[in-house]
Amino acid sequence: LKVAVLGVGLIGGSIGLAAREHLEDAEVVGFGRSPERLRDARARGAIDQAAGSVEEALEGAEACFCCAPVGALPGQVRDALAAAGEDCVVTDVGSTKRQLVDAIQDERFVGGHPIAGAETSGVEHARADLFQGAVWYLTPHKRSAGLLYERLYRLVVSLGARPVAIDAGTHDRLLASVSHLPHVLANVLVSQAARTLAGGDQPLPRVGPSFRDATRVAGASSAIWTDIYLANREALAEEIDETVERLREVSEALRGGDLDRVEDWNERAREDRRRLLEADLAGGEVHELRLTVPNRPGIVAQVALALGKADVNIVDMALAPAPDMRSGAMTLWIAGDGQAERARELIRELGFPVA
Amino acid sequence: LKVAVLGVGLIGGSIGLAAREHLEDAEVVGFGRSPERLRDARARGAIDQAAGSVEEALEGAEACFCCAPVGALPGQVRDALAAAGEDCVVTDVGSTKRQLVDAIQDERFVGGHPIAGAETSGVEHARADLFQGAVWYLTPHKRSAGLLYERLYRLVVSLGARPVAIDAGTHDRLLASVSHLPHVLANVLVSQAARTLAGGDQPLPRVGPSFRDATRVAGASSAIWTDIYLANREALAEEIDETVERLREVSEALRGGDLDRVEDWNERAREDRRRLLEADLAGGEVHELRLTVPNRPGIVAQVALALGKADVNIVDMALAPAPDMRSGAMTLWIAGDGQAERARELIRELGFPVA
Repeated sequence: LKVAVLGVGLIGGSIGLAAREHLEDAEVVGFGRSPERLRDARARGAIDQAAGSVEEALEGAEACFCCAPVGALPGQVRDALAAAGEDCVVTDVGSTKRQLVDAIQDERFVGGHPIAGAETSGVEHARADLFQGAVWYLTPHKRSAGLLYERLYRLVVSLGARPVAIDAGTHDRLLASVSHLPHVLANVLVSQAARTLAGGDQPLPRVGPSFRDATRVAGASSAIWTDIYLANREALAEEIDETVERLREVSEALRGGDLDRVEDWNERAREDRRRLLEADLAGGEVHELRLTVPNRPGIVAQVALALGKADVNIVDMALAPAPDMRSGAMTLWIAGDGQAERARELIRELGFPVA
Repeated sequence: LKVAVLGVGLIGGSIGLAAREHLEDAEVVGFGRSPERLRDARARGAIDQAAGSVEEALEGAEACFCCAPVGALPGQVRDALAAAGEDCVVTDVGSTKRQLVDAIQDERFVGGHPIAGAETSGVEHARADLFQGAVWYLTPHKRSAGLLYERLYRLVVSLGARPVAIDAGTHDRLLASVSHLPHVLANVLVSQAARTLAGGDQPLPRVGPSFRDATRVAGASSAIWTDIYLANREALAEEIDETVERLREVSEALRGGDLDRVEDWNERAREDRRRLLEADLAGGEVHELRLTVPNRPGIVAQVALALGKADVNIVDMALAPAPDMRSGAMTLWIAGDGQAERARELIRELGFPVA
């Protein structure tokens, strides 16, 4: 099976590594704008051959993965389709789908989006197991050829992922809701706080981890995110409008001093978070453990090590240093009653109070 | 100096411990509704004596700290003032100030709010060093007696904190912006995602840490947060309105497909976050290190231990497991160029790619 990969970075490189590891007869041909990075990809075993052009990469290919940034995808997919034979399925890995799928009506094209690796980039972070167990959305359209879709489906399975067919519009709303909107809110929050603080000439009060957590992704790389925001602008704008409506309700309940309504709203959010966390994670209910620890080098290690030795896995973790930077609160999320109980015991044995 | 502490939980207990440790002649008398918890506080050395009533606690006291939950504070402060002598300063530790300060016009009263310990509760988490280096807002009003304010100021300094005088209204806007609003947005985000996902019958896609980070504080305890939201409802409602305006601008820029405007907005947020983080932390610019690691028990420990041994302190940390739960991205925030460089080297030595 000859597989063409256009754009050999984190995702393209990982596709190459996974295909070469899991497919016996795979021959991966890569193409990218930078000859240097292409050489690097070959040196790392992500591709068998570096092509000199899109045409050369597509020659005889049965599948082609377009891995350009979202803004460059329509052009890259068109180039690939122009060079591809009749029996070649062309897909992409962009994080938004409707715009692209609407623009490309070729029967050999099926949109795709593996949910993996958003946090780093570059072929040096590529791994053969990047897609192990990952959802890989596929957005076939009315004209997509059945046999080509099936080939892509099997290919995605052999890369280790779980292909999930989804309508392009639904995909974009889903991603807007759980990824793009949180980024928008982080940006708004950080700019609003900067304005409030500058106006009052006050230092940023250390009020626990909420502000830090909520603004961690603020101002993410414009090179990546401007494209993502714009490519998904309709779904995202709709999500923002819904947020505006929800915020208006909260503001109204607050101004009315309506305790029951505020409490009910908060309880529903509590329940929603619990449901989402549990749906998200195998291994049972997620427990939140809060501990107070000295904030010196080595403490995180001490806690993590004690849990690691006992085979307790930390699902998520947050640190909140106290103002003196000498002590702090650590929050751990552990899945499953048994693991959480074990973690609680181990932390108590270390002498840290745990809630 | 006789100090009365009404409500001996995390904050009240820490005030008692700190006063007894740092003030040579301190005599701390505690009162609370639960005799059991009062006994516990005494057993832990947080108070010298347990009083049987507010009146008994205030007898001869020169300072009184009211440590009830926000909703119960007006009543507790009034009770304290009724029992206090003419030469006793009465303060509180509530997280919102305007409502209380407006309600209490007594010259012996000065509002207060130590920025510490929001993440745990109960006297078992109390520590003598809880306030070390912490900002402790004081909100004197027009009628506050100068000599009593000075006594409180010195007392707060001797507890280890940095007293900062601030107008009650400014305090509430500040807190609304960096604490209450992030909680509101987390609630809204989690409920909106639950609705989107339930509608589409789709699993929660693992799209990186943004959603998890942004919703970590969603549905925080209603017992605590309903009071906080309502006590600060005016400032919070104003902050929400401003957020609504900011979101409308984003939605407009998106619908217009205005790349420059979206990019400019994102860059401003990037700059705002950088400024806030640097203002927030001593030790120089905060560096963000992203690494790809196997997600097995012990890895967090391995990384934290290596950094701890080299005296590199981790300011903040986030884990984002990959879908297979076998690998993941870890993000570390390290303050200072030298420490960050050292961290980078150490992590590379462990064999993990770092960006």
